[in-house]
Amino acid sequence: MTETSRRSIPFTKMEGAGNDYVYINDLDGTIPNLSELAIEMSRPHFGVGSDGLIALQPSSEADFKMRMFNADGSEGRMCGNGIRCLAAFAYENSLTDKTNLTIETLSGVKTVQLMMNSTDNIIAARVDMGKPILNTQLIPINTSATQWLNQDFVVNDETYQVTAVSMGNPHLVIYQEGIDELDLPEVGPFFENHPLFPEKMNTEFVEVISPNEVRMRVWERGSGETLACGTGACAVAVASVLNGLTATKVVVHLKGGQLNIEWDRENTGNVFMEGAVRTIFTGEYFSQNS
Amino acid sequence: MTETSRRSIPFTKMEGAGNDYVYINDLDGTIPNLSELAIEMSRPHFGVGSDGLIALQPSSEADFKMRMFNADGSEGRMCGNGIRCLAAFAYENSLTDKTNLTIETLSGVKTVQLMMNSTDNIIAARVDMGKPILNTQLIPINTSATQWLNQDFVVNDETYQVTAVSMGNPHLVIYQEGIDELDLPEVGPFFENHPLFPEKMNTEFVEVISPNEVRMRVWERGSGETLACGTGACAVAVASVLNGLTATKVVVHLKGGQLNIEWDRENTGNVFMEGAVRTIFTGEYFSQNS
Repeated sequence: MTETSRRSIPFTKMEGAGNDYVYINDLDGTIPNLSELAIEMSRPHFGVGSDGLIALQPSSEADFKMRMFNADGSEGRMCGNGIRCLAAFAYENSLTDKTNLTIETLSGVKTVQLMMNSTDNIIAARVDMGKPILNTQLIPINTSATQWLNQDFVVNDETYQVTAVSMGNPHLVIYQEGIDELDLPEVGPFFENHPLFPEKMNTEFVEVISPNEVRMRVWERGSGETLACGTGACAVAVASVLNGLTATKVVVHLKGGQLNIEWDRENTGNVFMEGAVRTIFTGEYFSQNS
Repeated sequence: MTETSRRSIPFTKMEGAGNDYVYINDLDGTIPNLSELAIEMSRPHFGVGSDGLIALQPSSEADFKMRMFNADGSEGRMCGNGIRCLAAFAYENSLTDKTNLTIETLSGVKTVQLMMNSTDNIIAARVDMGKPILNTQLIPINTSATQWLNQDFVVNDETYQVTAVSMGNPHLVIYQEGIDELDLPEVGPFFENHPLFPEKMNTEFVEVISPNEVRMRVWERGSGETLACGTGACAVAVASVLNGLTATKVVVHLKGGQLNIEWDRENTGNVFMEGAVRTIFTGEYFSQNS
């Protein structure tokens, strides 16, 4: 029962906007089963407790490779807040001295920029999230309209004005007052499981504070309400610009923290997401599956 | 934002029967505000995530003193699963070489026995939980009956047979089939907040498997359903003996694990609780309140 008899795994717990993952250095590829380890370590009470596990691996085409596993052991393609933390993890553990990193993911190679203060501490990380997708066939939505921009949409006998944006995963953005009072567990599933959405749907409910600031709550397909969703914050920024509600740079307040989103609409067309990253603790985990 | 700029606190995360606490060595008394630290570290996503924080301090009357703080920062008197882990924490960190320890708590000095295997690893810990209290005035219950032993009790228009036992905190024990199907969040609050219970009530629903084995679910006042409750398991063992359902040694299966309870009814009159203790991980926490 003591640690000496079990396999010991060094790890770091980090969070970005409230998305908290276990980070593991697997540059030498010695961790045998990351999926099982993610299930074991993500459990509250008996594991570390987390949204999942992210491993740093070597890459032949980028500085590093990111492997991310959800708490149920399934492998994810990309996580905006996760990749921001992973870049900080690499730097803080002296695995690189670069502050501009390329990281290979299942969604392609991403770039992350670490923002440093004068004493060489990381104050934030910025990731290029790529181009938004507005074409309904690609989002995907079963509709003849090519875009959904402030589109009337009837759900559960109520009419909503929705804007559809994919950032690699599908989002509906809805503007309304009083999002704190919204019964999200009640309404979220109606959007998530609507028959027009063959791959289900993430939904953001947004209050515009000013042309530079919005507040949002998010209902994620398969997860329910979460503290933060990086692609959701990006989709909200894009939808807000398209609807003439905000400028192309906007602060997005989420339950788990805040993100600064910039849609570089004129030049690259890409969306950039920036926010704090925090090392909560480092540790040595004693696996039950030794 | 990096760890170098913040106060760093070494800790160990342990669990016993699913009660998980952060354990801290405070023998030199240098941790300034344990209550605030408990709130900060107990938070999921942003802290370590735990049921609370337990600190090991020096004692003038026992080997060590236990200070325990709940996740809301309130100080608790005693926790049976917590004190079992704390004894293992002291031994595993070479703070003692004793396997029979005395530990001062706000409920008096308790004794914990560590059970070792042949390679000097801790396989379990056993704590003397003291004598059960059956007198209704002391439990307390507002009733003229001196004991509640298989007593008819009407809650929400339904009649239950209840046995009342205090192990320092009040418990009602109810035997019924199909506890897995029970809607505990529905019925638990009716017992917890019944006007006959001036200090509220913890309630256990129990299935007897054999004279040596029972299964239980627990509704704890102020917490709702929990994975385990040490005093609750002891109350169940005592109630089971009093109702002629089990022997004085019984294995109690809880959601978070199993505990072996022995009521030494003939000699000391005390209840002993034994079960596994597990070090999940050790860590270094970077406080946000540096």
